[in-house]
Amino acid sequence: MSHPLRLLARRHRRWPLPVPAARRRYSVRIPGDGGGDVTTVADLKEWQPGRLVSDVQVCGWVRSVRKSASVRFVDITDGSSMRPVQAVVDKSLAADIRPGAAVRLTGVWHSSFPRPSVEPQQGNPAPTAELQVNEVEILGASNPQTYPIQNKYQTPESLRAISHLRPRTPINSTLLRLRSDAMALLSQFFFHEKFQQTHPPIITSSDCEGAGEAFTVKSGSSSSEFFRDPKYLTVSSQLHLEALAQALGNVWTLSPTFRAEQSDTSRHLSEFYMLEAEMSFVQDMDEVMDLAQRMLASLASGLRQRSAAQELEKHRLDSRDPAERLAFDDLVDLKELQQRWRGLMAPTRWPRVTYTEAIEMLKPVAHQFEHKPVWGSGLQSEHEKYLAEKIGYDEASDAFLPIFVTHYPREIKAFYMLQSESPPAQGPTVDCFDLLVPNLGELAGGSMREHRLAQLEDNMRLHGLEVPTHRKARSNDMGWYLDLRRWGCPPHGGFGLGFDRLLSYLTGVPNVRDVVPFPRHFERCDC
Amino acid sequence: MSHPLRLLARRHRRWPLPVPAARRRYSVRIPGDGGGDVTTVADLKEWQPGRLVSDVQVCGWVRSVRKSASVRFVDITDGSSMRPVQAVVDKSLAADIRPGAAVRLTGVWHSSFPRPSVEPQQGNPAPTAELQVNEVEILGASNPQTYPIQNKYQTPESLRAISHLRPRTPINSTLLRLRSDAMALLSQFFFHEKFQQTHPPIITSSDCEGAGEAFTVKSGSSSSEFFRDPKYLTVSSQLHLEALAQALGNVWTLSPTFRAEQSDTSRHLSEFYMLEAEMSFVQDMDEVMDLAQRMLASLASGLRQRSAAQELEKHRLDSRDPAERLAFDDLVDLKELQQRWRGLMAPTRWPRVTYTEAIEMLKPVAHQFEHKPVWGSGLQSEHEKYLAEKIGYDEASDAFLPIFVTHYPREIKAFYMLQSESPPAQGPTVDCFDLLVPNLGELAGGSMREHRLAQLEDNMRLHGLEVPTHRKARSNDMGWYLDLRRWGCPPHGGFGLGFDRLLSYLTGVPNVRDVVPFPRHFERCDC
Repeated sequence: MSHPLRLLARRHRRWPLPVPAARRRYSVRIPGDGGGDVTTVADLKEWQPGRLVSDVQVCGWVRSVRKSASVRFVDITDGSSMRPVQAVVDKSLAADIRPGAAVRLTGVWHSSFPRPSVEPQQGNPAPTAELQVNEVEILGASNPQTYPIQNKYQTPESLRAISHLRPRTPINSTLLRLRSDAMALLSQFFFHEKFQQTHPPIITSSDCEGAGEAFTVKSGSSSSEFFRDPKYLTVSSQLHLEALAQALGNVWTLSPTFRAEQSDTSRHLSEFYMLEAEMSFVQDMDEVMDLAQRMLASLASGLRQRSAAQELEKHRLDSRDPAERLAFDDLVDLKELQQRWRGLMAPTRWPRVTYTEAIEMLKPVAHQFEHKPVWGSGLQSEHEKYLAEKIGYDEASDAFLPIFVTHYPREIKAFYMLQSESPPAQGPTVDCFDLLVPNLGELAGGSMREHRLAQLEDNMRLHGLEVPTHRKARSNDMGWYLDLRRWGCPPHGGFGLGFDRLLSYLTGVPNVRDVVPFPRHFERCDC
Repeated sequence: MSHPLRLLARRHRRWPLPVPAARRRYSVRIPGDGGGDVTTVADLKEWQPGRLVSDVQVCGWVRSVRKSASVRFVDITDGSSMRPVQAVVDKSLAADIRPGAAVRLTGVWHSSFPRPSVEPQQGNPAPTAELQVNEVEILGASNPQTYPIQNKYQTPESLRAISHLRPRTPINSTLLRLRSDAMALLSQFFFHEKFQQTHPPIITSSDCEGAGEAFTVKSGSSSSEFFRDPKYLTVSSQLHLEALAQALGNVWTLSPTFRAEQSDTSRHLSEFYMLEAEMSFVQDMDEVMDLAQRMLASLASGLRQRSAAQELEKHRLDSRDPAERLAFDDLVDLKELQQRWRGLMAPTRWPRVTYTEAIEMLKPVAHQFEHKPVWGSGLQSEHEKYLAEKIGYDEASDAFLPIFVTHYPREIKAFYMLQSESPPAQGPTVDCFDLLVPNLGELAGGSMREHRLAQLEDNMRLHGLEVPTHRKARSNDMGWYLDLRRWGCPPHGGFGLGFDRLLSYLTGVPNVRDVVPFPRHFERCDC
């Protein structure tokens, strides 16, 4: 028994122990078995045990403290809900309870039994639940005089300057919970649709769209190239997704994507998340558009079941806090927001018009625009917004349906798109679509991909791209992408959607920088 | 009625149409309503309609063609399963059906009715199901003479040179499906645990661990700095996760992470996915370790319900293809792999030993190691593997339990870790852990974070880091991270786990480059 392992085993009789409980208690702990699944402030606020419960423990941050003669009313949040829970603390215990502090409060949980006949009085609703505190522990002190998150209105721009603290505001934390809900719902959607989630590379050899706006990646420690050739941050995962779709069938990803654009608008970020899906064995682009619609409809109806989206809507209606009302006023008008959601969940196929039809629609109202609508030029943002509003508005349901504009001229679209079989008289087009919504413009874009080698090479020459003559291993060129057409390339297509823009559209936050935890754009990369 | 919108509306009577069906048919289409949820080859292989079904359409890639006098036996895959489905094609139709080609085959689905009394004959099992083809469409031709994916054994290294085609092999496509399953299961796990999924930034100002192995990010188009100061690719999301956890409670992410390490080992990538979780209101590090175990146990038992993991195990036992058997031989021994899975799903708490205890265990066997085990030095990979094998092996269940080694010396661990309250005689330690497994060594690492400002500043000085005296907006320093301690910082902790290493451990693939679709490491960044 002199072997050290045996000695150690004797000393560590604490293992094997029973496996840890299926779920631990988080910020809220109910003694005994009474609490069931109540582990957060959001759960606690809904909990109606029908009796007083002692020794309930709530951890959280103090959002505000209101004084009365003998007690302090303390609003506590743990980030799980937009609204705090109220704790009542005797003055003698409350000395260090200050806005911003992290605390652990223990006490008796009072929840009103269901009282359907009693209406709360206007302007003074009775609290339905509160914690009568008998024990206070300060876990992290705060100095409210210097705390940058104040219980008053702060502009979005001023909050952006403190992005490491900004998520602590009620609205910003709710936006981040909605972002999390959206990720979970999308995972679930694609799982049920039998798409494989993939991790295409972030560091790549090529600039997908040849836009020259890629960031380059260098190794700090070496003067020579770490990867031998210059490498870039991905501007789109599509090309790599095509390779994966040819092995796995249908694939998707939600990946960071980068553009070194110097444009300083409310719609652009240098680092943003793209949701991209690619389908094999597709012969009709309608199937790709159907997938995009089905995904967004499923996402919107899923989000509506979740507290973050519910709270954002509900509290815009019932908020009495003047500072919060000002913050809500920074968002898109609630009526318009509801029109957006109704459109996303509409039980009809969204409108689909061709680019050529769109140009015809724009011509009679050309005087409204700065840029003249001309067949062969791209649609400007002003054109896109006009089309989205005019075509997408459905009077019967008072909803904004997103619209698909399809079949753009070949010259103004990417080299990998499939040439259309029946082009209009004006010139050759490609099988592609943009998904447009009011106010924001382009939300997603997709296409059928050119799956035939010779035609793809022609397209590359047409777009001024070098066509590698034969594949060289490890080379930095597009040979690998052409390879995908050499052995068994079926018709295929897919789309990419700006995830941050989508969240901005869903929440009514006008600036995409405010739905991202740490926004990066030209000249700004704080923290 | 001259308004162009009205004209267009008339022309587009096709909308509004009923919303697209809840799920489209993918690579497999069964006519009528008979097929239910049968939309892929994986589904079809399991389908037993109890009758012949005509007009069944299967899209896929030809894996192999076997000839008989009058017919061709064609193995077709769509990437949904490791094993193909068999199609029987009359010789007259099969001229262009070549390995690698993408095809659409239509015919009669024959599936054997349940025959419990009939045992397949040794070496010649009756096919249980096949498609009798009467229509062939070549969607993408192939030239098997030049096709780099051959139906013979190819070494992992040779496949890495064609990473854009590699996912087409049966084993590699199954590894990618298992990767996708793992992502879905982790999303579900954290959703049920009420953790918020977050997107911490990829481009950051700071190098988390001061290791000097970060990639730098430059804008190609500008000589000045795009973001004003030099920026890096993130080496860990932890610091940003701490900011988010202080707003949202418990958070997690599965994000790309980068290290410009020039080490060329089977365990290192320059671009890899890190699963990181951070919990607020934690006072005992055991809670963090419990979470890590609960997550991995939940993942492993979830994966076992999914086809990718089942096929990988099953076909190692029953494969008769000599090339495939060689490919399986590249993996870790099946017996050991099963010991790993049993350990991950063990109904007991995994062993937890302190670093100090671990050093005591290593000393008597110091002669086995290249590096002498000394208190105050890091554990070398050889030490970690020894500890994992000796402590983790559970004889009763013939399983390898992962082990936690905790409380390392303060000097060799990161500045943000919380100093332990009862250090051993040898010197100060921190509340941290590494999760070690046999063969691979470190799978995850975590710690309690120093949540007190003064102590954190001391730690920074001790580690030779500059302590910002007061926070300047937009500065490149760590002021924002110190800020998190100024207003309401509760005790908190978390962990980070190398997702690719985990998949390598779960699948028995010895080289982490083979569980990633497009591996990036020193001097290699193909495609």
